[in-house]
Amino acid sequence: LPLPHDDNLPQVTTTRHLRCQQQKGKPSRAELDGRQIPITLTSQITALAAREIAACVIVAESRVLPRLVAEHRELLRGRPVLLAPGGLAGALRLAELEPSVQAAEATGFPAAGFAQGDLFVLRGIKQNLPIATAQAQRTAELHAVFARHLPTLVPSDLVTTSMANTNHLIHPPITLLNAVRVDGAHPFRLYREGVSPALNELLEAVDIERRAVCRAVGADDRRGRDWLHGFYHHDGMEGETLAQCLQSYPGFESVPGPGTLDYRYLTDDIPHGVAQWSALGRRLGVPTPAIDHVLEVLRILAPDLDLVADEQGLELFLRHVEQTAAAQPVPAGG
Amino acid sequence: LPLPHDDNLPQVTTTRHLRCQQQKGKPSRAELDGRQIPITLTSQITALAAREIAACVIVAESRVLPRLVAEHRELLRGRPVLLAPGGLAGALRLAELEPSVQAAEATGFPAAGFAQGDLFVLRGIKQNLPIATAQAQRTAELHAVFARHLPTLVPSDLVTTSMANTNHLIHPPITLLNAVRVDGAHPFRLYREGVSPALNELLEAVDIERRAVCRAVGADDRRGRDWLHGFYHHDGMEGETLAQCLQSYPGFESVPGPGTLDYRYLTDDIPHGVAQWSALGRRLGVPTPAIDHVLEVLRILAPDLDLVADEQGLELFLRHVEQTAAAQPVPAGG
Repeated sequence: LPLPHDDNLPQVTTTRHLRCQQQKGKPSRAELDGRQIPITLTSQITALAAREIAACVIVAESRVLPRLVAEHRELLRGRPVLLAPGGLAGALRLAELEPSVQAAEATGFPAAGFAQGDLFVLRGIKQNLPIATAQAQRTAELHAVFARHLPTLVPSDLVTTSMANTNHLIHPPITLLNAVRVDGAHPFRLYREGVSPALNELLEAVDIERRAVCRAVGADDRRGRDWLHGFYHHDGMEGETLAQCLQSYPGFESVPGPGTLDYRYLTDDIPHGVAQWSALGRRLGVPTPAIDHVLEVLRILAPDLDLVADEQGLELFLRHVEQTAAAQPVPAGG
Repeated sequence: LPLPHDDNLPQVTTTRHLRCQQQKGKPSRAELDGRQIPITLTSQITALAAREIAACVIVAESRVLPRLVAEHRELLRGRPVLLAPGGLAGALRLAELEPSVQAAEATGFPAAGFAQGDLFVLRGIKQNLPIATAQAQRTAELHAVFARHLPTLVPSDLVTTSMANTNHLIHPPITLLNAVRVDGAHPFRLYREGVSPALNELLEAVDIERRAVCRAVGADDRRGRDWLHGFYHHDGMEGETLAQCLQSYPGFESVPGPGTLDYRYLTDDIPHGVAQWSALGRRLGVPTPAIDHVLEVLRILAPDLDLVADEQGLELFLRHVEQTAAAQPVPAGG
């Protein structure tokens, strides 16, 4: 998603309707809530005149990052690039792949939506979405770049943005406890029929362990429920538990259950998410038994999927944690 | 289920239709496939004249055995009693509760069925259902007693009957992978929509570990699939895998998914089944990681249920295994 320099672009804030007129099968003109806006959308992304592009947002699965960078290296070179979501150590991985990039990461998709003909309904626009860069002192600057278009971003720190992806928390357990439905491609609404009190028990158990790892790496350890509530309460999410939040949110009403286990809910959210929490826990002496049991059962169910922690991301993240800790001022009296 | 001495009672063999005429709300006369039979059915079981009763079959959850024995001690005293199913160490537990009983156990229900008004449709009548007693030399004798009415029983040994309950194998994994459906009381057919290839992966992983424990205790280690196929192939079960067998069996067509996690699929089949396999594995040095991961996730989902191995049954079973091993003739050259 290349972002133009034009400051007149409307900002994505709350539920919006984007209508794209097509010309010869390609979008040529768009209206956001009735207001006409310029649009440049192309699958030949490198064909765009470089001067038009101020920054890029990569909305993709974490595991395809190396391929994306290889394909679009010229476009990305030297520019601010936001991974949304990053996956654990996303910005660090991106900087490793292309050191000239000004890499930032957010904890999730900025927004979701669906298409009906030429109408895109944007829903689930996250408020308070944390963004960070590897160099803490550059976060404010890059935040300013991206907040021009995504004003709901908030500056954070990289250990937090890497550890607080709520999809990583929710998707593997909800897939496990609906595994036969998913594997058998039985239609169901993921955040309605797919949620029950027993799922909440598992989600909260996983979240407790995630938060313990957060504390070990110096990340914001707020509850998964609090992250979700912060994203979506403005749009109707209510509840004290994760299950209540998921079930109450109108934006999740019609999200379908995936029709296969070979889906990013496992293939991305485990290697770049929950399996990293487990691996970090092992390295840092934080037990994560609930997470480990969930992962081991999922690996038995789906022996052909790659559901192990991404090793490069883990090492980059641990090095970053060490460097950040070393750079901290020694506490008075310490 | 008290069994009368009358040798003219029809035998339960394959799918049958039992029609009960009621008088004042109680069954008074019955026909099995159109043939009239005597019937005595009462909830005041101790009110039956003792001389009418040759033997008893207890068809109940393993966990209620102590209460049942306490309630019906006079009826059971000195008689042949078959636990169908036994649960691990069922006959040993029964003998401990009432030493005068001639205790036997089978690996499952002899038959299942459903009622439509006054018609009971018997389906799922197990062929080749193993039965055993604690004293190996008495198995043939008790087998003869019960085979008068349940001719599909076959004599076996107690470690096998305790380790080969296919419900213990199937129910906890199928509940886990359909947990939200069960917990949310969503209607589904357990052995149709509730089965998928991913479930088969988990079932076969659990079965491999069960069979390793079987070998460690000297039990018949045939595959769970082979037990099932032996029970039900005559009635239409087909398939090489556990999932294929479950899905192909007409007798399982309309078995509903349970509407709560607080059901014998977990509350009986774990403490007297799969958790015992895990506990035995720990004691005997046989790793059971797949079983352990399944159990730990289920315990997180349902923290209020008692899902630990029954300790008394475990100790009785281990003592029996030791005694049986000690009584074995030393192999030539050993």
